[in-house]
Amino acid sequence: MLSLFTFGFAQKRPKIAYTPAKDLTLVGKVASTENIFHRVDTNAFAGLPAAVKKRVVQSGGLAVSFKTNSPAIYAKWCTAGTVASATMTSVAYRGLDLYIKKDGRWQYAGVARPREGQTCASTTIVRGMDNAEKECLLYLPLYDETTRLEVGVDEGSTVQAGAYPFQKRVLIYGSSIVQGSSASRSGMAYPARLSRETGMDFLNLGMGGSAKMEKSVADMIASFDVDAFVLDCIPNSSPKMVSERTAYLVETIRKKHPNAPIIVMQSVIRERGYFNLASGERVRQQNANVKVEMVKLLQKGVKNLYFIPADDFLGHDHEGSVDGTHPNDLGFDRMIQVIKPRLVEILGTSIEK
Amino acid sequence: MLSLFTFGFAQKRPKIAYTPAKDLTLVGKVASTENIFHRVDTNAFAGLPAAVKKRVVQSGGLAVSFKTNSPAIYAKWCTAGTVASATMTSVAYRGLDLYIKKDGRWQYAGVARPREGQTCASTTIVRGMDNAEKECLLYLPLYDETTRLEVGVDEGSTVQAGAYPFQKRVLIYGSSIVQGSSASRSGMAYPARLSRETGMDFLNLGMGGSAKMEKSVADMIASFDVDAFVLDCIPNSSPKMVSERTAYLVETIRKKHPNAPIIVMQSVIRERGYFNLASGERVRQQNANVKVEMVKLLQKGVKNLYFIPADDFLGHDHEGSVDGTHPNDLGFDRMIQVIKPRLVEILGTSIEK
Repeated sequence: MLSLFTFGFAQKRPKIAYTPAKDLTLVGKVASTENIFHRVDTNAFAGLPAAVKKRVVQSGGLAVSFKTNSPAIYAKWCTAGTVASATMTSVAYRGLDLYIKKDGRWQYAGVARPREGQTCASTTIVRGMDNAEKECLLYLPLYDETTRLEVGVDEGSTVQAGAYPFQKRVLIYGSSIVQGSSASRSGMAYPARLSRETGMDFLNLGMGGSAKMEKSVADMIASFDVDAFVLDCIPNSSPKMVSERTAYLVETIRKKHPNAPIIVMQSVIRERGYFNLASGERVRQQNANVKVEMVKLLQKGVKNLYFIPADDFLGHDHEGSVDGTHPNDLGFDRMIQVIKPRLVEILGTSIEK
Repeated sequence: MLSLFTFGFAQKRPKIAYTPAKDLTLVGKVASTENIFHRVDTNAFAGLPAAVKKRVVQSGGLAVSFKTNSPAIYAKWCTAGTVASATMTSVAYRGLDLYIKKDGRWQYAGVARPREGQTCASTTIVRGMDNAEKECLLYLPLYDETTRLEVGVDEGSTVQAGAYPFQKRVLIYGSSIVQGSSASRSGMAYPARLSRETGMDFLNLGMGGSAKMEKSVADMIASFDVDAFVLDCIPNSSPKMVSERTAYLVETIRKKHPNAPIIVMQSVIRERGYFNLASGERVRQQNANVKVEMVKLLQKGVKNLYFIPADDFLGHDHEGSVDGTHPNDLGFDRMIQVIKPRLVEILGTSIEK
């Protein structure tokens, strides 16, 4: 960090005024919850698998929108856990990621680093700015349960809840890849990037390791008040599960949402499968089975149902993953280049006014 | 991980035979060292700054080359520290990254995850392969000092030192960005990617935070037996240091290496500088000053000296960094798209036979 004293003058460090996140605009909520940093109220849905409950209380995809003219922005926040997985950065796993609107586009402005071995931290996210009023979007930790968040500005500056930045509600149900593993920071998770780039609200219902289309989960998903559904849940489901559960998930959504677009994605190819032959065969079988199910559903006459094959998601130089399973930022970028035009085409024309 | 018992047969877990790294082919060494996992023998160079000594014993850029027909590859290794920085993954910071040659190209094959809170770990990097003989390249931790490394194969399989995979020796002296922060794993550091993609040996002399062109460091760099020099050391040097020290570094190299190409790179634009005005100004000044120095050196008649401006290194959507300073894998990929063609053009024609 640059010191406040860069220019040789002993400037007095400004006092910081903190605002609780609950007084700002919450972004990315699938449904309202008692704990505002949860994505789903797990008490409202009976019979959810324990692994699912654990994931949906993590704050992946949530953000707060606010406006301020402060030259610096700070945060105090706490999460439930303390250690990132070996293939994720701590700032993505349990830190914060700030974007500010510039020239009409959301632009990266700073990250908040968590403290090693501690669940709470307090830090400067960005400083040294001019004092024009700015629209800010602060992404919460992707993989940890956020238990507290306050946004700080220099005392004397203004701060207030921001406008809701996105339109239309598109739920993405999926695996760790949806939740954002292994994006380098929370704003780089692919639903977050899609929202910023399209202006539509891609709601992150990624649940690392646990997107297995269980009946209770399908019923829960169908109950949500959204305009469209993207199902990126093949990576966590065994080939057998894919065959047994895809139709129920799609048809349950269709019953509750007669006209909402439903977009099913194949599983991203796992780079590890090029050498681990069993792993490669498993993904081929997952993707073959979901294609069979899609054909059946289309033949049964399910309307407004779309399919995105995964062939080009990671590019073809084999550098797009961190661990052979999860895209790195390069892999996510390539995936977005493939799916964004399709999603814009489908959602732009199919969502009911 | 997939279990060994995926297909329902209780296969006997094979015993593992380990080979110390010293018996395999070391790749990426700038000079020989007593401790084979150091990049520089710090006792051989008097007066190096302490921060530089700390970095050059970290194993960033080193790898081992071997051949094996084992269906699985394992590793046992130790590093000196235990905690990755908040903006790096643990697998990049202190884990291992395996590539295997496939269809004539090096392809990602697996990572070895370090153990949380422990300096040593033992793990399977890849399994379930066919038993054809394969050429392997295992990258060492980027940011930690590696103290021990053994490569394991299934007992009864062959394993032997591999061929040296790259030709010509191109030293890259630079900051954390050269050392590989924040690539998602060690094989994604930009010198490593350049080596695999060009076949030339880009030797990583990145030293996070400490590439400040000190006289002792310049003398050390000039002493190395290499064919060409890439100087990506502007990010760590203050604008004043850039003006004061660039000429000495270039001229010292030129004296010892009358014809070796010397390529100077501007500092990557810091994304944080778009909002933090002082930070933005600092990078503009660094880059202006190095340009001035380059013009002077060229006017003085220094031959075979090249300059790569940084304008397009990160692309222009502001998504190419993890923290406003260090490229993420997407930023590194964009940087490689800019510098690789220039490097190939310069080095392909200018290095003496």
